[in-house]
Amino acid sequence: MLKVEHIGIAVNNLAQSMPLFEKLLNTPCYKTEAVESEKVTTAFFRQGDTKIELLESTDPQGVIARFIEKKGEGIHHIAFEVTDIEAEMKRLQAEGFTLLNDTPKPGADNKLVCFLHPKGTNGVLVELCMERKE
Amino acid sequence: MLKVEHIGIAVNNLAQSMPLFEKLLNTPCYKTEAVESEKVTTAFFRQGDTKIELLESTDPQGVIARFIEKKGEGIHHIAFEVTDIEAEMKRLQAEGFTLLNDTPKPGADNKLVCFLHPKGTNGVLVELCMERKE
Repeated sequence: MLKVEHIGIAVNNLAQSMPLFEKLLNTPCYKTEAVESEKVTTAFFRQGDTKIELLESTDPQGVIARFIEKKGEGIHHIAFEVTDIEAEMKRLQAEGFTLLNDTPKPGADNKLVCFLHPKGTNGVLVELCMERKE
Repeated sequence: MLKVEHIGIAVNNLAQSMPLFEKLLNTPCYKTEAVESEKVTTAFFRQGDTKIELLESTDPQGVIARFIEKKGEGIHHIAFEVTDIEAEMKRLQAEGFTLLNDTPKPGADNKLVCFLHPKGTNGVLVELCMERKE
């Protein structure tokens, strides 16, 4: 794994949280993006080499809506950038980690992503991500 | 704020979680440190420009023990590096954020730190940290 690519934060209301995080981080949101397959709208902020990604659910049954219902707003996942996502998925599976998807899937920000089951990672939802080459 | 300095993860048992995170992150733990004032033992891993900090409570009444009792193991806080912690504390207070300590206090890794109340930051426990110059 190369670095912490981003930290995902679940919020109820992006319109309220975007100006809040602009004040907190003292930097403007530089991009918003809808990811229909994940039923979220995202907003990105830069902090050094890492991004902060706010996530608002577009569907009451979506993963972010259910996360907030269960745990409240807050940090949802950590995403690590990898050079070869399929090789890293194989390595982690061989080490005993459980993958939540068998093949890389499209994520926000032109990435291919794979999540690990948080039961195997001390409750931390870990995302692997790699830039899509098309 | 300059960058995400580290991400703090609350764990029950550092002896079990250290080898787990070494496998997950594919990098060795490079330092452990007890922070008596915070009633924690910490273990650090590098990921690019950011660190992952595992936190085990040394006291059943400590903040990490109480966090795990309430929410389970998982991501506890995000720490942002700042150049001038007192100036940043003043800026955030003026923006309406609530500080959990009025003056910077010593943290792990030779840092001065200040936490923000998560009620004002969408449930995210935010730490400001600055290298101690002494």
